[in-house]
Amino acid sequence: MAKPLRLGIAGLGTVGTGLVKIVQRHADLLAARTGRAVVISAVSARSRDKDRGVRLGGYAWEDDPVALAQRDDVDVFVELMGGADGPALTATQAAIAAGKDVVTANKAMLALHGNELASAAEAADLVIRFEAAVAGGIPVVKALSEGLAANEIARIMGVMNGTCNFILTKMEAENLTYDAVFAEADSLGYLEADPTLDVGGIDAGHKLSLLASIAFGTKVDFDAVRLEGIEKITIEDIEQAADMGYRIKLLGVAQMSGRGLEQRMSPCLVPASSPLGQLEGATNMVVLNGDAVGQIVLRGAGAGEGPTASAVMADVMDIARGIRVSTFGQPAASLTQAKTAGSNVPAPYYLRMQLKDKPGALAKIATVLGDSGISIDRMRQYSHSDPTAPVLIVTHKTSRPALGEAIAAMAATGVLAGEPVALRIEEV
Amino acid sequence: MAKPLRLGIAGLGTVGTGLVKIVQRHADLLAARTGRAVVISAVSARSRDKDRGVRLGGYAWEDDPVALAQRDDVDVFVELMGGADGPALTATQAAIAAGKDVVTANKAMLALHGNELASAAEAADLVIRFEAAVAGGIPVVKALSEGLAANEIARIMGVMNGTCNFILTKMEAENLTYDAVFAEADSLGYLEADPTLDVGGIDAGHKLSLLASIAFGTKVDFDAVRLEGIEKITIEDIEQAADMGYRIKLLGVAQMSGRGLEQRMSPCLVPASSPLGQLEGATNMVVLNGDAVGQIVLRGAGAGEGPTASAVMADVMDIARGIRVSTFGQPAASLTQAKTAGSNVPAPYYLRMQLKDKPGALAKIATVLGDSGISIDRMRQYSHSDPTAPVLIVTHKTSRPALGEAIAAMAATGVLAGEPVALRIEEV
Repeated sequence: MAKPLRLGIAGLGTVGTGLVKIVQRHADLLAARTGRAVVISAVSARSRDKDRGVRLGGYAWEDDPVALAQRDDVDVFVELMGGADGPALTATQAAIAAGKDVVTANKAMLALHGNELASAAEAADLVIRFEAAVAGGIPVVKALSEGLAANEIARIMGVMNGTCNFILTKMEAENLTYDAVFAEADSLGYLEADPTLDVGGIDAGHKLSLLASIAFGTKVDFDAVRLEGIEKITIEDIEQAADMGYRIKLLGVAQMSGRGLEQRMSPCLVPASSPLGQLEGATNMVVLNGDAVGQIVLRGAGAGEGPTASAVMADVMDIARGIRVSTFGQPAASLTQAKTAGSNVPAPYYLRMQLKDKPGALAKIATVLGDSGISIDRMRQYSHSDPTAPVLIVTHKTSRPALGEAIAAMAATGVLAGEPVALRIEEV
Repeated sequence: MAKPLRLGIAGLGTVGTGLVKIVQRHADLLAARTGRAVVISAVSARSRDKDRGVRLGGYAWEDDPVALAQRDDVDVFVELMGGADGPALTATQAAIAAGKDVVTANKAMLALHGNELASAAEAADLVIRFEAAVAGGIPVVKALSEGLAANEIARIMGVMNGTCNFILTKMEAENLTYDAVFAEADSLGYLEADPTLDVGGIDAGHKLSLLASIAFGTKVDFDAVRLEGIEKITIEDIEQAADMGYRIKLLGVAQMSGRGLEQRMSPCLVPASSPLGQLEGATNMVVLNGDAVGQIVLRGAGAGEGPTASAVMADVMDIARGIRVSTFGQPAASLTQAKTAGSNVPAPYYLRMQLKDKPGALAKIATVLGDSGISIDRMRQYSHSDPTAPVLIVTHKTSRPALGEAIAAMAATGVLAGEPVALRIEEV
């Protein structure tokens, strides 16, 4: 049997603790499957004294993750601290400089610094692996970079933030407001310290940008992801969508065309009966379309101790087995800089607005849409006691820019009370 | 860039032709992703003159697949001939003897000879890879042996024969008899030369036995798969199942418990609203349960030129990248021989029978069930003009052996016309 593979684990939160448990519980299984023992040499975390419910006595302790990354008895630096910059980045850079392979669950760091980190690692014949950074326990990085590697990928689509899906499905199931479910998610510890990362779509956008790099052979370009959060979704939107046979999901889409790479993370309406529409709670789903394979759908837990630790350990086991695929599926030096395509692919849109209750208001809106070349599939005005009237419009296919212009023109008529909500309808 | 990886492709049917197309269409993409060119040195098939719609002129031709396997300019022998024995097996053995890695889509060969082939390959430091043998384009072998390798797998469940799922969903959608849809599937070329391989559950059973080996670290044991086909399923079964909120699927289940390894491939009722219940047409779905990751669901095309060739090429690309995982996820020499567990895990059952139309018939059946300790959840007797009465019973949880004894006792009462159909209900 080959020499043991020695881990240095930086960060002992939920995922780090889960990883320690797997190493301890499955020592025999890991050795049988990889042909060598997987052991922990040293760990590092903010608080040494905290009771984490696992035995840590056998491992060396480092207060400084950089020192951990540089230890001679560490082969693989496992970065589970999180955060785009700061200690996670510094320690990861130190690990690469010290000749260590890296396994990380840190989507923010890779979304913002992945190109540089991958280049540095590959220049030193090291690997950086990040299965746990995208869609938790679902082996989607491996599916895309290895299992579907023979395909030209046409499109990636997915629900990749469990917290947002929890909020949206809970609002619908229990007829609650966004604020009420947001407060519940917060009390359950589902939200990041900065909740905008979740509900603003940033976390899911990070993940999408990583998958897009693998799928299209392009540099990670998080800044090009068009981001829109779920904060403006009301229970009325959810009910009206359901009325029409749709559910609202925070949906990520990345696709390559002659116009360039389009990446967007935004609330969309999807058919309630589709696999994406039926996704409940904190579950994640990724839908991959390849030219040879057609459509592959992957579904599983997107977060949590066990699922995320499962993904981290899969990366560790790959390294133990000598699997050394480039970080983004091909050498970082060969990744191209994609032109950013606008979201011009036409789609039907859901449009909700409040109209001032005066004669001719609805006619003005309809006229604006007609003048913008946008035809109306369905329109409903709801009865109301407020001074403003809720109006719902489903358009035929139009482009987002055309719709944006129409909305600006609507505002200019003076009949709008507040800003309309526009959601794309994806017929997945 | 490293030396080209040179393929010898034996078998130029649908999958072989699809593979040639990928090599020709995606030469740049394959090289970018693997770091080396993937080229075809030679091919072999039954008929040299057949027009397959691809250029083959640049490749050497061998009439004999054994000669192909032994060529000096072949690094990887790609076996796409099919058949458990005969030329496929002989040529695969020759390839291993000649020091070639093997990629195959042949589930029958591996289900019957996988242990010996893997042992021989591993003794020579060679790999055998078979992603295309299970669930077509879905990267389930990779998900199980690599992506979820940190998990103790509790259960594998899946729909892995697209033809059977096509027949069952078409019967329901168009209210057709089994015979009518079978004939259509035949005319569409969906059936194997020996259709029992499909509708008898054998093909799907082969696949299940391969996944079970990876999941549980056990020798491939196809003989231990309890097989039941879909030939006895009537449109009435499908309608009655639908009435109760279920769909009938040819469902494979493999699970390990203290009693041993249970492997079964049989028509089961699953909730119509579950992911498995909603699977339409020739699509495949595999549901994997691991102790850390929870449940992972994979869905995609289970057959066809593009999807299967995508899986074959993924294996080739793994070899090009230096990925050399053991055939069944751990060394063949370390696989254990599992004890075969009977299907004693209790479940509710669906029971359909024809009763002779005489007084007390139904009472006798109910008495037999009661005497066998099997309680009835629902029972329906349908109106009829025949001399026999259709009766449908859904039991509470019982074991298959107990149900078998009850059915034998029913037969002894003399009120049965024909043999009852008993289908397990899986609350997936």
